Amino acid sequence: MKQNLLIFFALLFIFTIKISAQQPQTTPQIYSEKTLSDLKKIQQAALQSNYAYQQTGYLTNNIGARLSGSLQAQRAVEYVAAEMRKLGLDVRLQKLIVPHWVRGEEKGELVEFEGMAKGTTQKIILTALGGSIATAPNGLIADIVVVGDYEELNKLGKDKIKGKIVLFNNKFDREMAESGFGSEAYGQAGIYRRGGAIEAARLGAAAVLVRSVGGSQNRLAHTGGMRYDEKVTKIPAAAVSFEDAETIAYLAKAGKIKMKLLLTPQTLPDAMSFNVIADLKGSEKPDEVVIVSGHLDSWDLATGALDDAVGVAVSMQVPFILKQLKLKPKRTIRFIAYMNEENGLAGGTTYAKEEESNLSKHFAAIESDLGASHPLGFLFAGKQEALAYLAPISKILSDQGSGLSSFRPGGVAADIGPLTQKGVPSFAPWFNTQTYFNYHHTAADTFDKVNPRELAENGSLMAVLAYGLANLEQPLPR
Amino acid sequence: MKQNLLIFFALLFIFTIKISAQQPQTTPQIYSEKTLSDLKKIQQAALQSNYAYQQTGYLTNNIGARLSGSLQAQRAVEYVAAEMRKLGLDVRLQKLIVPHWVRGEEKGELVEFEGMAKGTTQKIILTALGGSIATAPNGLIADIVVVGDYEELNKLGKDKIKGKIVLFNNKFDREMAESGFGSEAYGQAGIYRRGGAIEAARLGAAAVLVRSVGGSQNRLAHTGGMRYDEKVTKIPAAAVSFEDAETIAYLAKAGKIKMKLLLTPQTLPDAMSFNVIADLKGSEKPDEVVIVSGHLDSWDLATGALDDAVGVAVSMQVPFILKQLKLKPKRTIRFIAYMNEENGLAGGTTYAKEEESNLSKHFAAIESDLGASHPLGFLFAGKQEALAYLAPISKILSDQGSGLSSFRPGGVAADIGPLTQKGVPSFAPWFNTQTYFNYHHTAADTFDKVNPRELAENGSLMAVLAYGLANLEQPLPR
Repeated sequence: MKQNLLIFFALLFIFTIKISAQQPQTTPQIYSEKTLSDLKKIQQAALQSNYAYQQTGYLTNNIGARLSGSLQAQRAVEYVAAEMRKLGLDVRLQKLIVPHWVRGEEKGELVEFEGMAKGTTQKIILTALGGSIATAPNGLIADIVVVGDYEELNKLGKDKIKGKIVLFNNKFDREMAESGFGSEAYGQAGIYRRGGAIEAARLGAAAVLVRSVGGSQNRLAHTGGMRYDEKVTKIPAAAVSFEDAETIAYLAKAGKIKMKLLLTPQTLPDAMSFNVIADLKGSEKPDEVVIVSGHLDSWDLATGALDDAVGVAVSMQVPFILKQLKLKPKRTIRFIAYMNEENGLAGGTTYAKEEESNLSKHFAAIESDLGASHPLGFLFAGKQEALAYLAPISKILSDQGSGLSSFRPGGVAADIGPLTQKGVPSFAPWFNTQTYFNYHHTAADTFDKVNPRELAENGSLMAVLAYGLANLEQPLPR
Repeated sequence: MKQNLLIFFALLFIFTIKISAQQPQTTPQIYSEKTLSDLKKIQQAALQSNYAYQQTGYLTNNIGARLSGSLQAQRAVEYVAAEMRKLGLDVRLQKLIVPHWVRGEEKGELVEFEGMAKGTTQKIILTALGGSIATAPNGLIADIVVVGDYEELNKLGKDKIKGKIVLFNNKFDREMAESGFGSEAYGQAGIYRRGGAIEAARLGAAAVLVRSVGGSQNRLAHTGGMRYDEKVTKIPAAAVSFEDAETIAYLAKAGKIKMKLLLTPQTLPDAMSFNVIADLKGSEKPDEVVIVSGHLDSWDLATGALDDAVGVAVSMQVPFILKQLKLKPKRTIRFIAYMNEENGLAGGTTYAKEEESNLSKHFAAIESDLGASHPLGFLFAGKQEALAYLAPISKILSDQGSGLSSFRPGGVAADIGPLTQKGVPSFAPWFNTQTYFNYHHTAADTFDKVNPRELAENGSLMAVLAYGLANLEQPLPR
């Protein structure tokens, strides 16, 4: 899941309007009785289906990690396209240019610190941030300077930063995450991961470390995206685990602390890749499109189960369930498995650009990219006047505890963000993110983290929402 | 913490007798009023002290992992001895011969499995078991056979096991651990880690993997001890993380699965090491000894905070608090930091052997080796008739929620086990082990896992128990 939109969410959070499911005051016909009955059938079928769970298992265990540009990402494209063809959908691959960054060796060890046994080192668990340059082939050795934020960094100034490894020891607010505001905690703490390499390099730092942006307290480093500024020297950048940040901070208080850092990632030439797009044609308005989507790429440390094989799998399940029930939507339901959400957003931006002249025919867009715990409801970004039309869907989903959750005009998910910004009504399932950020971007984002029952709940949410939107009698105000 | 005794605990569990604090029916004088008052002072001082917490920080962060034979273990010996000398104790180092096993590279990757993208592999997180031999320098490649237990292994027989990598996929019972029976869950699941290499090798296996014996669900492999049989070919042995065991089992069901395994540990010549023994001389019966102890060595993946820097630190705190309060025990309180609990028990067995002729003067022995969560009470192994004499101590500790917990005649901790077996009344704090085995023997057993308040509670338990035993007016029945 992309961080940019999350910050936006965090800022918007105080403006979020809680909505209770209500009928519109004027009562246009929203659904026929047949559609309402079909929606309930879809819900039941989806809650009982294990299709999404099986697809998640295949994408994660059989295919594996799916970083943009990798052979696994390409295999995933082919696999998903083939599965959609099996369902009889109209499938196309949309070409994209994506970055091709490959992780190499990564090693950290403290080679000098207060009280150490002579001749020993202390291992530091770290992982290169996505896009980081490499250190020299033999690594670099430098003193570590620990700072809490940019203010502290800048106060130290060039004299004290030049040639050093800077550790941004900004804490991920686990308490906030455990209270249900995981995305907000993530947005806050992510600042230094994204921009820390630039700010440290401005003062001459040799490398930058960030305390992991995530909730793991199990010696796991959380990777993620970062930025360089073409005008500022690029320096290697890595995330250290919670534990290692604590250890470094402890030892830095006790005296001088020196580290050997080795990172050997490579940035290869940009690669060709694809969004997988598969249409289940509408019976009445085939040119109007409702998107159901997730992103197919993942980070490379794990098999990207929660982020975001589950989102792709529940989206795949929407046409699967409709085919199973022999239901045809009135508008076209378009499945999209976006590529490159994690480190570039090429999939989302390319799609929006190529459909630029056709956006008025994009009736709505849904993306699932916050894991697979119990869905607390769904988010909506669009005109407030549209809310009334969502009441029947919300009522049906309320039966499974997942009615309309909140109205977030700013945006609800990264890949469909460019569509949202152009006025396409946008939706996303909304989850309890109490534990999501403990696994996010770590080696532990694996298939076992997916609860089949909770995944089925999200599958049901996606299918009811998609079919409900595709069969609305009226257009949504926009 | 050693597994042998834990199995014993598990077997004994059903015979465990719950004890409520009660006065003996005949009422010998157990304590003077002065001693009772002193015990309460000790309790308050210990609950407020941060000495044990600071010592834990130093042992883990400044010194680091302390596997037997390592430079860090030696540094820890010197450090602890110096700290005890600072307190004015009579310190000696007791020579031991310990194994010197050094972890090397460890890499696992699946190189063939159903559905894989050609040209890729899937990374398996694993860690060599302590004492394992190495693979060939370039590793070995073999099919994986997954079995649940020895019965399943033996049914497959030589034909199907020869040349293969055997995975014992026996599950650690997290539910049992979360219900408070962590030690029992550990004892049950550990069978294959300890003996699996022998049984698999009997059928010609090329290597053995075991599902981690521990509760981590964060992609951490739990290391630990293992055995070879001199009559059976030695094969390399490693633990895979929970997640990787699940992935391998999933892929094995789907078809053939092949792995490349590289382990390069080395068994160096046995090394000299030491128990640190420091006496706070008794004022009335200096030749009678009450031992307070923990083990100074740790596994090498982390800094061994819970296992068992905390046990050493709370034991160090016992003389510290007595010195602080200017209290002299009637019997000698002997601090011992045992070496080599994890992979040999040389410290515990050497001590017991060298004191063989003097065991009658060992009034009691206490060891803390189950972490540092809130102590639920203390365990006692000895004559049932002795229980009555423990009532006043239990009453004082009950005020902090840590009274006499249960009577376990079989034994209460590994290093003092040989003393227990010779009739020395033995004690150990008893903990809520709900989360202990999630970190046990993994890279995440680090200082941050220690809660200072809960550590102080254990420190208080150790001090009250030690001083109470040292000042008993009557000898304990034995």
